[in-house]
Formats: sequence, structure tokens, C-alpha cells
Amino acid sequence: MEEEGKAKGEEAFRNTRVPPWTKQITVRSVVTSFVLSVVFNFIVCKLNFTTGIIPSLNVAAGLLGFALIKSYTTLLSNCGLLGEPFTRQENTVIQTFVVAASGIAFSSGMGSYLLGMSPYIGAQLNGGNTPINTKGLSLGWMFAFLFVVSFVGLFSIVPLRKLMILKYKLTYPSGTATALLVNSLHTPKGAKLAKKQVAVLFKSFSGSFVFGFFQWFFTAGDDCGFSSFPTFGLKAYSKMFYFDFSPTYVGVGMICPYVINASLLLGAVISWGILWPWIEHKKGIWYSADLPTSSLNGVQGYRIFTAIAMMLGDGLYHCIIMLLRVAYSLISQYIQKKESSSANHEDADQNTSDDLDSQLRTEYFSKDQIPSWVAFSGYIVLAVISIITVSHIFPQLKWYHVLITYLIAPVLAFCNAYGCGLTDWSLASNYGKVAIIIFSSWVGLENGGIIAGLASCGVMMSIVSTASDLMQDFKTGYLTLASPRSMFASQVLGTFTGCLVSPLMFWFFHKAYTLGDPQGSYPAPYGEVYRGMALLGAKGFSSLPQHCLQLAIIFFFSAMLINIVHDLLLHYETRYKLHRFVPNPMALAIPFYLGGYFAIDMCIGSLILFLWEKRNKQKANDFGPVLASGLICGDSLWSVPAAILSLAGVNPPICMKFLSSAMNKRVDTFLNGV
Amino acid sequence: MEEEGKAKGEEAFRNTRVPPWTKQITVRSVVTSFVLSVVFNFIVCKLNFTTGIIPSLNVAAGLLGFALIKSYTTLLSNCGLLGEPFTRQENTVIQTFVVAASGIAFSSGMGSYLLGMSPYIGAQLNGGNTPINTKGLSLGWMFAFLFVVSFVGLFSIVPLRKLMILKYKLTYPSGTATALLVNSLHTPKGAKLAKKQVAVLFKSFSGSFVFGFFQWFFTAGDDCGFSSFPTFGLKAYSKMFYFDFSPTYVGVGMICPYVINASLLLGAVISWGILWPWIEHKKGIWYSADLPTSSLNGVQGYRIFTAIAMMLGDGLYHCIIMLLRVAYSLISQYIQKKESSSANHEDADQNTSDDLDSQLRTEYFSKDQIPSWVAFSGYIVLAVISIITVSHIFPQLKWYHVLITYLIAPVLAFCNAYGCGLTDWSLASNYGKVAIIIFSSWVGLENGGIIAGLASCGVMMSIVSTASDLMQDFKTGYLTLASPRSMFASQVLGTFTGCLVSPLMFWFFHKAYTLGDPQGSYPAPYGEVYRGMALLGAKGFSSLPQHCLQLAIIFFFSAMLINIVHDLLLHYETRYKLHRFVPNPMALAIPFYLGGYFAIDMCIGSLILFLWEKRNKQKANDFGPVLASGLICGDSLWSVPAAILSLAGVNPPICMKFLSSAMNKRVDTFLNGV
Repeated sequence: MEEEGKAKGEEAFRNTRVPPWTKQITVRSVVTSFVLSVVFNFIVCKLNFTTGIIPSLNVAAGLLGFALIKSYTTLLSNCGLLGEPFTRQENTVIQTFVVAASGIAFSSGMGSYLLGMSPYIGAQLNGGNTPINTKGLSLGWMFAFLFVVSFVGLFSIVPLRKLMILKYKLTYPSGTATALLVNSLHTPKGAKLAKKQVAVLFKSFSGSFVFGFFQWFFTAGDDCGFSSFPTFGLKAYSKMFYFDFSPTYVGVGMICPYVINASLLLGAVISWGILWPWIEHKKGIWYSADLPTSSLNGVQGYRIFTAIAMMLGDGLYHCIIMLLRVAYSLISQYIQKKESSSANHEDADQNTSDDLDSQLRTEYFSKDQIPSWVAFSGYIVLAVISIITVSHIFPQLKWYHVLITYLIAPVLAFCNAYGCGLTDWSLASNYGKVAIIIFSSWVGLENGGIIAGLASCGVMMSIVSTASDLMQDFKTGYLTLASPRSMFASQVLGTFTGCLVSPLMFWFFHKAYTLGDPQGSYPAPYGEVYRGMALLGAKGFSSLPQHCLQLAIIFFFSAMLINIVHDLLLHYETRYKLHRFVPNPMALAIPFYLGGYFAIDMCIGSLILFLWEKRNKQKANDFGPVLASGLICGDSLWSVPAAILSLAGVNPPICMKFLSSAMNKRVDTFLNGV
Repeated sequence: MEEEGKAKGEEAFRNTRVPPWTKQITVRSVVTSFVLSVVFNFIVCKLNFTTGIIPSLNVAAGLLGFALIKSYTTLLSNCGLLGEPFTRQENTVIQTFVVAASGIAFSSGMGSYLLGMSPYIGAQLNGGNTPINTKGLSLGWMFAFLFVVSFVGLFSIVPLRKLMILKYKLTYPSGTATALLVNSLHTPKGAKLAKKQVAVLFKSFSGSFVFGFFQWFFTAGDDCGFSSFPTFGLKAYSKMFYFDFSPTYVGVGMICPYVINASLLLGAVISWGILWPWIEHKKGIWYSADLPTSSLNGVQGYRIFTAIAMMLGDGLYHCIIMLLRVAYSLISQYIQKKESSSANHEDADQNTSDDLDSQLRTEYFSKDQIPSWVAFSGYIVLAVISIITVSHIFPQLKWYHVLITYLIAPVLAFCNAYGCGLTDWSLASNYGKVAIIIFSSWVGLENGGIIAGLASCGVMMSIVSTASDLMQDFKTGYLTLASPRSMFASQVLGTFTGCLVSPLMFWFFHKAYTLGDPQGSYPAPYGEVYRGMALLGAKGFSSLPQHCLQLAIIFFFSAMLINIVHDLLLHYETRYKLHRFVPNPMALAIPFYLGGYFAIDMCIGSLILFLWEKRNKQKANDFGPVLASGLICGDSLWSVPAAILSLAGVNPPICMKFLSSAMNKRVDTFLNGV
């Protein structure tokens, strides 16, 4: 696909001038980006608070940006006014802005580490619910924290940019795919397809929005409405197996790979179908029978800690493998370079035969440089500010803890950016989890180890995730001839927007709903999971209920084992490609806490895509992601009016209730008696 | 379309031999026909008991017959056995059998005149609820009644067969369409399309069946489940405006013309949206405030009698117009004949230039004659048996009443068969309604006028409806070269099956559910409507509540006026074809009693078809009726296991209940207190 893109790519744009970098960031692109950033921030926040599974929204961002600007220019030209033509560089700049801004919504930990600090989540986990180990959430310090930690990452990767893209020629699959999309949108043939895609996007968007609106009417009260539909019966519903009619997760399922969705379902079956019922049989033996259901000493504890164990096992495996891979790749490149320098002539020969596209791209990519000294001094100044501010916001985290984080972070950022270039897989949250365990155990429970661990996770995650996200963007910029300087400016603006909007979104949800309530519509599972990790680090294994440690160890090592089996099959069994059928440990672990309902949504998404691909592969490829994006955006956007209605105290008029036959008879008798 | 069928028609079958008539009725075709007859009888019964709207199921019967026999022969040939090849004549015979059998399900009045005799319906209408004016339903006399009245019709039309088809060359649109379908199914190109159609049929059938199954689980108790879904809010639900998720009526809506569906919706809006709320305001003024809701002296009376008035107005108009048309057509043909006999030469010339198809068809159609004396003596013998039996079953109806019916019936049967040939519109039930009014007023209330009226309606309807149905079949037979003798034999067998199966189906529903309960799932509206007409005839206008007569008169004349406007526009305004937008009075009247829910289903069917036609007209034409048939058959067939479960006392496990917000709070408090 990339080859095709290259071959046709720059030839199609032969007659198009690349505007200077100052013309790539225009007022209209900044306005559009800002609007889209708000939208995507909202969507990511909502996903954070429901399941924590966030699909790639790049395609949606690219298409929506294109559609908005295109309709704006068309409108202008219809009014007889002549606007500047819409270039693909401008499109890339919008893309970068939106990705940077919505990246913050994820790395700001509104649904994970920051939420985990709150006393509300603290109260759910017994152990560590002391004033020093909780921090009330307020907008002020959240803004301050985000602003100081988020910009550091930006500067850490600038010097690596040329290394990764020009020298190592890493693929960055997502970035490349986005670039192909942007390029194709701006060719005549691509524009035609784009028009159809925009139409599908619009339809699925409105359908999903209207369905969300329709659903709302039936949700007067708890356990009302489509989201509590016992599709497979009441028994299955009590075990969290039901289809909750959520277009969002059907859409997410269409974007996520089949193996992820299947793993989620498998995880749900293993945990809620087999394991938890078995543990519930031990009620009164393994754990006290009169604990509240949400107590971590009861069955909820098994849910949380086995999930944490599996995620840690998976994360650790990936960290180790990534470090090994990066080292191996660098060493082999070093050796290759040595060899190639001895065979310099051939290399030069090859260079001239290299196609024009690559030369042209390299030329533009090297044009508007950002000097290295700017990057270095920027990093140091920001890091110093950050060290002072963060240790001030979280007194539990001393200045030397933050300093150490900032010394390690660039190395991990490099690893993550490099690994992401190879595999498209960002491990930011895994590095964050490692940071939690290290710093919470270092500081200790009595000194506020939980808060220290969670805060250091935030510092680490921001840098590491920014590094990989923005390197993807640079790859996109490289392939669309966007200027690195306009990209950087756009990233700075995007990050700024993200830091501003993300806490506001959090505040909006926080005011309208109860976040982190396992029984509510916004369980925000990662809040409890991240806090659970910090508790584990600070308090050690004594925080676990009986036999939970054994189970956790089993899951920790199974996660590693599954990964090893997967990688071995990937390398040594190429005939049947059995590795495709090895489940993903991370995906297995998520439903441990949440249950299977969203896994069922996502599998339905998979099923739709599968049947579609069987009927018409090309159409499914062209319109599948677009349909999915529409479903996600429409449903998520309905949450805005829904939350506003909830804030305004407007209640839905009807409750669609599901009662067992016996219960229904009693209710009918009661109602007739009234 | 017909021209195309003719042109290609017989040429495509040049190499196919037409089997003798004894080979056209085979064992396999009879078995298949019997199975399909049972299925379609069931479906028609179910439709009778829900809304009384029965779409044309001919396409479904044709396709299903084809699919069954084709899969049987394919199976045989796959096993290495050689069955007789499946001919289109055999297919027509199956078609005829099924149409004759399911016609009985309609004309047997299980949901109209027979049901209207029952004491249960009698109790709902005050006035005439005396022993002499009701008759308990039992299988014995229903069998006897059906057997004696249903076969008479068969003999009444045999002598008319040649006249209608060969001489008058009437079109019989449905019969022609069915013939085209059968012919196309047996050509190679048609077989390919048929395969795809069968696949679509199968898919929509299974989808609809599974959805019915799924729905069942949520219907523990009254007002539970999808069929009570307040789609447009609780207020609209109380006015019977909601989408009840019934695939059957969505399918019916796809088959019925747009104007019918729109008229239904308009009728619902006029009656339940405007008129009834206005009349309910007069509660305590026009009618006593403490009447039960089902009393005919209350608002229910206005519903029934305005609907009856409108239907009678419509029926009377059509009867008059039809008589005029038939007379005009016969006179003009007589004049034409006189003229043409003087210009005999030209006529003969034209005859020779007539295409071969017509000659071939006429030849086969005149081959296996049924002698006229057989038909006449058959009619007389059967009529005598019928007169004795019917006056024995219903002592309220004297022998001379039945005799008079049998004297008038052939004339009306001729009119109906002729009119149906011209317009595809069978007026059987209208003639039946006229019979009700005449005989119930003749006999009088104290002598059992209600039963007399309803019984005479049955005698009339059976003859008249058989006449038009079977003439359609003969047209199909003519166009597919089927032998008239095999057709007749098949009709006899079909009628026999219908008389046997139809009361059994009724009994099945009767045992499993309460039929004719306005609040139940099987309101069978025509039961009350037909009884209401008989009451009106027997008792006169004194049975009406206050001001109801004025309203009824308004509706009676509006129905006539609407028809006049329609016909005038049809003839004199050809530019914009405004007549297409004139509503159908019959369709306007049906929702007066039932409310708008099924009209909404049907309009959704229309909408689907409309959007489909806009996207791809050809595909919509090819697959629309097939999809609709699948929806109807699948959903209806689910009623079999549903009724069996209900008979066995198995209750669905869950109630999907819809409560208002305030009610929900009270229920929650109640449930938490338990």
C-alpha cells in the first residue's frame, strides 16, 4: 500500500506548490483544529470513563478536518469569494494539532492516575485511604500539573526526529496510513472517494446521535434503558453478559483488530463466566461473607488484583522485549553502517537510483529546522520548572524523585518512539505502571506512596506518550511534505489546547455524573486499577485477600507466557500463522473488572466488519473505519447534551425496566393496588 | 412487463414439453401444497386476528413452492436418483392450491363474521347480546358450514372461465404477475435471480423468526415487551401511536401500495389524534362518565360505528361503480361485436397476425375442458345441500333466505370476477357487508337477525371471493399453459384443505389466546365491526350513542366523496396524477378502531422500500417483495412455537416494562422495601 502511495504520490502533486511553513498554519486550520480537539477530547474522556479502551481516532480526525475545511472553502467559493486553496500540508497540520490535543486527554490520566488519587476511589479500596494518600481533585492544580509535564515531552523528541525518520527509516504504520489518507484526499480520484466517505461518516454520525437521543428517553432511573438490556437473559446480565446497544463500542470494535475483541470476550468468559462464580462459592471461607460488594477484600479484590497482575506481566514483558529490540536494532545498524562505509560506492549508487519522492521529502523535511540547542535548553528549563511545581503540588513526591524521572524519561521516550516506529504499539502506560510500582514502594505507604506513585506515573507517561504520538505525526509530515517547523508549532498549540480542555472535560463529567462508581454508567475502571497498583507497591502483598496472591502470580506469568508463545509462533511458525489466534493478555485483563458487555459490543462490531469484508473487501476497507468513526463520534457527542440535561436536572420521562416474571407480578399487584 | 413476458415467454420454453394434466398434479406437488397451505393459513389467521389487513402472499407462495420442490429435486439428483423434472405447470398447480386454501382462511370469516357470532364479542357490544343472537363457536358446525359453502363458488365460475379470459381478455394483474414470476423462475436467467431471491427470502425469514423469538423473552405479563414500546413517548403510546417492532407489518407495509399505508396513518391521526380526544372531552355530556372503556355506548361506540359507516360508504360506492362498469363494458363489447361482425375480414386478418404465444395458450386452455353441465349440476346439487345444512346450523336463517342468497350470488360473483379482472380489486367483503345489512334487518333483532346477517355474509363472501381468486388463478394457468382440469382439481383439493385447516387454526389460536379482546395482542377488530354492522341492521340507529349517527353519516358520505374525487381525478386530471394522493377510505377507517401502531409499522415498511427504490430501483423491485415475504413468514411462523409455549403454560422469563419517571420511583421504593 505504501509502495503504491509512493509511486503515485508525489507525481500527482507535481503541479501543486508547497506553501511556506507560515502559510501551512492558517487561522482557519487553527480554528478547525481547536473545534475538533474539543470534540475528540470529549470523546476520549468519555471512553476513559467507561472502559478505558481508546481506539485510534486518526482517520476520523483526518476526514473530519478535511470535511470541515472543504465545506468552508466550497461555501466561500459559492459566495463568490476566493479563499486560499486547501493544501495537504494544512490538513496534516490540523491532524497533528488534534492528535496532540487528544493525546493529552489520554496521558493526562483523567480516567487513570489522577482519578485514582481522589478520595472517592480511595474509599473503594481499603488500605491507603488516608489523607496523605488521597488528593481531592480540583481544576487549579490539574491545570498546573498538566502544563508543566506535557510540554517537556515535546522537546525531548525534537532532536530524535531526523534520526528516527531519515536515518533509521522507521515505518510508523499509523503515521504512514494517515499520510496516505491525507495525500489521497487531495488527489482528484481520492477526493471522489472522500466525498462518499464523508457522506457515510455523516450518515452513521447522525444515526448514532439520533439513537443516543432515543435511548435517553428510556433511562429514568438506575438500571433503566437500553444500556441495561438483558439481551441474553437476566442470569447472564447479572454476570455482565449483555449487549448494551452502545454504538460507540460497536464502532470501537470495528476499528480494533479481531484478536483484541476476541480476547476481550475470552477474558470476560474466563473471569465472569468461570473464575468469579467459583470464587463466590468460597464466600465465607476465603473472605468474610458480610463485606459490601465493592470491598477489595471481597470478590472485587480478586477482580482488581488479577487484572493488575496480568497487565503488569504484559507490560513488563513488552518493556523488556522493546529494550532488547531497540538495542539489537541499533547494534545491527551500527554494524551495517560499518560494512556499508567500506562499500561506500555501491551505497551512493543506490542513493541516486532511489526515487525522486524520497529526495523531495527529505529536502522538505530538512528545510525548516528547529535548532538542537533550542530543544535541549527547552527541555532543561521545562524540566526544572516541572520539578519545582510537581514536588510543590504533590509534597509526597520529593524533588529528587521528579529529577530522577526526568533523567530516565528521555531514554524511555527514545525506546517508545523507536518501538512505535517498528510496531505501531505505544507502551506509554506500561512505562507509567512500572513508575507507579517503583516510586510508591520507594516512598512507602505512610509517606504518601500512593500519591507519589500515581504522580510519577503521570510525569513518565506524559513524556513517553508524547514522544511516540508526535513521532507518528512527523512521519505523516514527512510523507506529506509538511514543514517540521509548522508541525512543531501545531504540536505546541495542540498540547496547549489539550492541557486546557482536558481538565475542563473532566470537570464537566465529574459534575454531571459520579465517576468511578463500579455500578454507574461511568465506572472508569482504570482509576481503581492504577490506585490498586500504587497500593500494591506501597503496601506490598499484604493488601491482597486470601489466595489472591497465588492467583495474581498465575495471571502475571500467564501474561508473560502468552506473549512468549505469541512471539515464538510469529517468528517460527509462518505456515498457518497461528500467532494470529493467540489472545492479547492486556485485552484479556480489561473485562476482569468490567465484565463482558462492551466486549460483546465490540465483537458485534467485528462481526459486522467480518461479514462486510466477506461480501466486499474493498468497500469494507474504504468505508468500515469511516462508519465506525461516525458511530463513535455521534454517540459520544450525544453525551454532551445528555450531560447538560443531567446538570440541568432534566430527567428522562420513561424507564424501560427489566423485571423477572415473578418480580413483574409483584410490581403489577403493587401498581394495581396504588 | 406483460409484453416482454409474452415476447420472450413461450419462445424460452420451445424445447420444453407440456406434460398431460394428470402429470401436472403430482404427489410431491400435493404434499408441498398442503404444507404451504397450512403455513399460509396460519399466517392469514394471525393477520386476521391482529389487524385484519392481509397483503397478497402470492409471490411468497410462488417462491416458496419453487424453493421447496427445487431443493427436493436437487437433493434427489445429488443422491443419484432421477426425479421428474419440475415444470412450470406443476408450479402453477401448487400456486393455485395454496391460493385456494389460504383464500378460505380469509373468506371463512374466522376473524370477522364467524368470530362476530361468539358470545364473547357479543358481550362487548351492548344490544343484541341475547342467546338467539349469539352462537358459541365449536369445531363441528364450523367444519360443516365451511364445507357446504366453500365448494359452491368453485362451480359458479367454471362456465365463466372462457368468457373472462379468452373472450373479454381481462388482465387480472395479480394472476398475470404470478404467471410472469412462475415463467421467469423456470427460465435459466430467471432461475439465477430466483436463487438469489430465495437466499434473501431465507435470510429475512430467519432474521424475522429469530427476532420474534428474541422478543418473546421480554413479554412476561401484559404491556411487556417490544410490542408495547412507547417509541414516541408514553402520551403518544396511550393514543396508540408507537412502533411495535413487528416485522410482519413492516413486511406488509412493503407489499401494500404507498397510498394505503399513508391513508392508514392519516386515519390514525384523524381519529386517535383529533376526533377521539375531542369526543372524550364530551364525557359526561354525550355519554355517561362511568361506563367501562369497552362499552359501545362510550367512546368505543363512536370508534366502531364511524369505522363501519366509512367502510359501508366505501363498499357501497364500489359496488355501484362496479355494477355500472360491468354493464358499460358488456354493452360496449356487444356493440363492438356487432360492428366487428360487419367488418369480419379485418378481424380475421388481425387474428392471424396475432403472435404464436396467444394461439398456443388458447389451445392449451381449451384442451382439457370441464363440461358446462358438470358445472351447472354441481352448483345446483351443492346449493341444495348448502341450503338445508346452513338453515339447520343457523335456525335464525330460514331456507328461503339462503335460497335467495344463492340466486343473487352468481350475479355478484360474475361482477366480482369481472371487476377483479379489470382492477385487481376484489370486493367480496363489501358484498358480504351489504348482505349483513339486508338480512339482519329482514330477520329482525328478536328473531336472531344478527346471526342471520352474519351467516348470510358468510354464504355470500365465500362464493364471491372464490370467484375472483380462482379466476386470477385461471389467468395464471392460461399464461403458463397449465391444464384447466389440473387447475380445477388443484382448486378442489386446496378448498378442501382450507376448509379443514382453517377452523383448526382458529381453534389453536382460540385455545392459546383470547381473541377479540381490544386490549389483548389479538384484538381481531373485524369481529366487532361485522357484529356492529349486523346490530345496526337488526336494531337500527337506536343502537348508536348520542351524536354518533351524525358522525357516522358524515363519514359515510365522506367515503363516497373521497372515492368520487379520486375517480374524477383519475379520469380528468392526467397531468400531475393527483389521484395518487387521494387517500383510500377503507384504509382510513381501519385505524379508527385499532389505533395507529400498525400504520406506523407499515409506513416504516414503505419508507424502507422508498429509500431502496431511490438507491436502486431494479434491486428494490427484485428483492423488496421477497424481503417482505420473509419478514411476514418468519414472524408469523414464530407464533406457532409461541402459541404452543402459551398452551403449555410456559411463561417468558423477563418483562420489559415501560414506566413513567414518577411511577418508576415508586416501583423502585417498593422493590427496595421488599
